[in-house]
Formats: sequence, structure tokens, C-alpha cells
Amino acid sequence: MPDVNRQWILRERPKGRLGESDFQLREAPVPEPGPGEALTRTLYISVDAANRAWMSPVRTYIDPVEPGGVMRAMTLGLVVRSNDDSLRAGDVVEGMAGWQEFAVIPARQLRRVERRRPLSIVMSGIGVTSLTAYFGLLDVGRPEAGETVLVSAAAGAVGSVAGQIARIHGCRVVGLAGSDEKCRWLTSELHFDAAINYKTGDLARAVREACPRGVDVYFDNVGGPALEAALFAMRERGRVVCCGAVSQYDTGSPEPGPRGVPGLLVVKRLRMEGFIVMDFYDRRREAEDILAGWIADGRLVIREDITEGLESAPRALVGLLRGDNLGKRLVRVAPEPA
Amino acid sequence: MPDVNRQWILRERPKGRLGESDFQLREAPVPEPGPGEALTRTLYISVDAANRAWMSPVRTYIDPVEPGGVMRAMTLGLVVRSNDDSLRAGDVVEGMAGWQEFAVIPARQLRRVERRRPLSIVMSGIGVTSLTAYFGLLDVGRPEAGETVLVSAAAGAVGSVAGQIARIHGCRVVGLAGSDEKCRWLTSELHFDAAINYKTGDLARAVREACPRGVDVYFDNVGGPALEAALFAMRERGRVVCCGAVSQYDTGSPEPGPRGVPGLLVVKRLRMEGFIVMDFYDRRREAEDILAGWIADGRLVIREDITEGLESAPRALVGLLRGDNLGKRLVRVAPEPA
Repeated sequence: MPDVNRQWILRERPKGRLGESDFQLREAPVPEPGPGEALTRTLYISVDAANRAWMSPVRTYIDPVEPGGVMRAMTLGLVVRSNDDSLRAGDVVEGMAGWQEFAVIPARQLRRVERRRPLSIVMSGIGVTSLTAYFGLLDVGRPEAGETVLVSAAAGAVGSVAGQIARIHGCRVVGLAGSDEKCRWLTSELHFDAAINYKTGDLARAVREACPRGVDVYFDNVGGPALEAALFAMRERGRVVCCGAVSQYDTGSPEPGPRGVPGLLVVKRLRMEGFIVMDFYDRRREAEDILAGWIADGRLVIREDITEGLESAPRALVGLLRGDNLGKRLVRVAPEPA
Repeated sequence: MPDVNRQWILRERPKGRLGESDFQLREAPVPEPGPGEALTRTLYISVDAANRAWMSPVRTYIDPVEPGGVMRAMTLGLVVRSNDDSLRAGDVVEGMAGWQEFAVIPARQLRRVERRRPLSIVMSGIGVTSLTAYFGLLDVGRPEAGETVLVSAAAGAVGSVAGQIARIHGCRVVGLAGSDEKCRWLTSELHFDAAINYKTGDLARAVREACPRGVDVYFDNVGGPALEAALFAMRERGRVVCCGAVSQYDTGSPEPGPRGVPGLLVVKRLRMEGFIVMDFYDRRREAEDILAGWIADGRLVIREDITEGLESAPRALVGLLRGDNLGKRLVRVAPEPA
């Protein structure tokens, strides 16, 4: 058991594009849990585009990360010591330990999870990104069999699962991704009907060609020009699932919104709706079971994109914001327990 | 019975701001109805911001008005002669006769309406603009008593009714309008809780001050900067009713959309939804009865803004797009029958 706790500190609030030098590695003593608290050892850190949004000075749905503090992130950890009856040493817990090897957290802020093999599936296949895809697509987008579903950031953790769930529900699925390699992966391994490299050519035209009957549901992870292109391609009574705005997170100030808001919403009777996955957590267990079933029978392919060691965390996040990842990015901080 | 039919022709598609000179007055013979058709004499022309949208070269929910043809508009008319069993001379009918004194229209495209006093109420108090306000606010916006409802173009035909319906439903109501006189009318005659002249001062700040708890429902008739200000003032789980985009109709090319789309939709879980009143016409009669009841008991105040004579039609529309009207603008083409 080490007596040093390595931590990544947010140096200052990034003004424009996030860089690795916005973080600083620090060594601190391993803390002692007080009453009602547990000491956890971090196994995996979840690397998510939302991490960047949390660094924005404006409050989103949670308070912003403060400079000088440990960078916030979802984690999977192992309970080392617990001063609360609800947890015991050896339990695997999900929480917000952030970018550090050890953390003391109130037991009620930790959620004990079932041990699965590999344990990482708790953060990938049935984790928050998959739940986001599940509830966003099905409860907000409400696609029907035979409809066309367009997904942006389709090679990412949320998009790759959203597209596959649409396919499982009998929809025609088209993905937007940032490289030809990602596009090939979407069509050949995930069985998307088509994929568009949004970095080459005329996006609006490519969307029209790939969706000749128009788009019924657009699952939007990015905002910006992709959202604009989708709005113009939407069919009447289409639905735009506003899941994220990655294109806007890593900039100093947000761009103007897409043309066609609100004009196209009126003439095509569109619905655009935002959501936060936590709003659906009363049905979390049900969704996890359904996702696990699809994974087990091979209909849902989960790709993990794991970087090794706490020291890789800033690089992993900066790269994710640049679109380097394929599937769900995690940082492995310590090996899974035997 | 005159033998000349005066008509306003759309000369060419307006490129920027609409002007009176985009129309030309023409005299044509009064046409003869064929089988299944009726000849109608126009009593009232409804002047609506949507008229301008119909001149855009792109198809909206109906085909665009073609240059060289009679300007399209909703009308209330009197059947002069009918070659269809469903209509008789003397019937009052609603239809799309456009800017002309007489029209021949297939009987199935005409809707016979009850004779009311004044007859103009069919196009104002219980007309399409009031129905738009009714279904948009209640079915799309779904306000609850005690919530804050913000309405743009609040002194117009749709906005003034939407705000009053919100008040009748127990909401706090704030209106945006383009002059101090309109604002006074909203608060003193229509009993809005507050009104903001959007042409003076800092709109975002004025909205925040008038809606200290935030906006639950924004009924948007205008798009543009007002929509942006509203988005920033929305409460979590707020709803934006996309009814129109007047600020964008009378320009050559639409501006970029509001900042905060889609970012604010995600973090605040907002729903933005467009609609067309026709989608709700299966419940039209029910809504007309409810509106008529509110008008009869004085809870819903209807203001008509009538210009006299067919020749006033271009001036009436150009003025409406500039925001000259208070309440529902109509052109009286012929006197109501005794």
C-alpha cells in the first residue's frame, strides 16, 4: 500500500483550447477517511467530453471545477477502508474520485457495483456513456423502425452505442465521424448503413445523399456545423436529441447557433430537446440489464480505448477533445483486483 | 354586382425587405365558377407575418407564392354563386382567396363559418391567430399555474392572445413588444404582469429582471436576439414554443441562430418545439368554443386593427412586418352583410 497519492491539479481555467500544460502532477499523502467516509483506490478514470465543459467558468448542471483542485472525473475504484456500514474493503465502487490514485469520499456518494469481467465494462458497455446513448435515443429521440437516424461523434463512446441501439431498433443509421478509418469501423464492425467523414467535402450534401428520405432523428453530440447540416436535412416532425456540444466546449466563447433556428423548427415542426442522463437514473438498472444482454448476444459491440497510468490522463482528455479516440476512453490507474 | 375584380399581384419575389412596390394592382373580369366551385366576394383579408414567409423561394409548409400571381392570404368571404351542393349564395366562408375582391375556389377548399357579430371575430378572436396561440401555448408549451411565461411580439395577434391564455391559466406573464405604447397596453388592458420594450436598453438584463425566477415557457414569434435572450433566461426543463421567426422573414438571408444552441438545451434540459396550427385542426371546434367563452366573459380581450379597402393591403402587410399593428390586423374589402 503506497503512502503517496499522486493527483492531477487543474492549474488554471483554460481560456481557449485545453492543453496538457493546464494540469500539474502533485504528490500528497494518502488521506484518512473520517466518519461515514471511505478511502478508495482508483482503478479506472472515465475520460469524457463533459470533463471539458465542467472547466467552463459558468455553472452547467454541476459546479465548475476550481483551479488548484484535483481534476474532476468519474472513476471506478476499490474500497480500501470504510468507516460506513454500507461499504466494506474490497467493494468496487463508482464515484467522482477525479484524477488521483486515492480519494476519501462520503460513502453515500459512492455506488457499489457488481463485479464483472472485465470490470471496465461497468464504465464502458453499461456505463454512463452507454446509458446516455440509451435514454437519449429511446426516450428523447423516440425512433421508430424504418426511420433514419443520424448520429454525430459516431465513433465516440456515446455515438457508437446510440447508432447501434438505433440499428437494433430497426432504423437506418448514418454516422458522422472525423476520419476515414472511423467511418470504416462504423460500417464494417458496427454495421452502420453509412458513415460520413465530416472533415472532407460538403457536409450538407453528404448528409442529403446518405439520407435520401431525410433525417427523422438526429442524435447530436457536437453542435456547430454538423447540427446546422442536420437541421436542413430533417424530415417533418423530426427530433433532435441534444446530448452534447463538443464542438463548442474547447473554445473561449461559443459560436453563434446554427442557421435555421428557429425557422426550420417551425416549418418542419421539429423538436429539439436536451437531457442529462442523471434525469433517467430511476430506470438505470433496467437499462444496464438490456445493454448487458445486447453485449452478451453480440448485437452491441463495445470498443474500449484505454490509456495506461494516471500520468496519461491529461493526454487522454486533450486527445479525446481532438477526436483521437475510438469508442470509450478510459485511463487505467491500477490493475483490476484478481 | 361589379363586373371588375381588382387584384394585387406579386410583381417579383422580394429580395430583402418587402415594399409596397413589390405589388401591382390589376383589374380582371369577375370569374365564373365551374362545376364544384363557388364564386366568393371577399369581406376581410387576414394580414399575417406568415404571408411574408410564403414569398420566400424555399417551400415552407406550403408552396411559395409565385410572382405574377395574386398575393395569397386567408380571407373571409360571402358566397355569390355556388356550383356545389355544399354551399349556397349568402354563406360566409373562410378560405384562401388572396388579395382580390372576387375569387373562384373549389367548394371543398372553403369552410362555412357561423355568422357572428361582428363577423370579423371569425378572423380575430376565434381565428387562426388565436388558435395558434391556444394550441401553441397549451399543447406545445404546457405551462403550469405559477410558472413564468415570456411572449415575444406580445402586442401582435398571436402574442397578445398567448399571453392572456397564460394569465388565464394562472401563470406570471411577461411580454416583449416594440414600443412603450404597446407595453402600456399589455400591462394596463391585457393585465400582463410586465412588459419590456425590446428596442430600448439591454434586453437580456431586462428579461432577467422581469423574470427573477427564470422563464419556464417562452412563446417565440420572432427568433433572433429575443430568442437568444430568452434561452439564457430559461429555467431548467423550460420549453420554447417555436411559433414564428418574424425577425428572419423580411430579410434576404437568415442570420446565424442564437448562441446557446445546443449548449443551453443540454445543460438546462430545454425543449424547443415548432408547430403549425393546422396540425391541431381536429380540435379546432373545441378551441373556438373555449376562446369564444373567454371573450364573452371578458377574460380575453381581442383588439382588431382594421385597414379599409383592398388598396390598403400592401401597406397593411409592410406595416405589420415593421411592427405597426396592435392586435389582429385585417383589411376590410367589403362591408359585412346585413
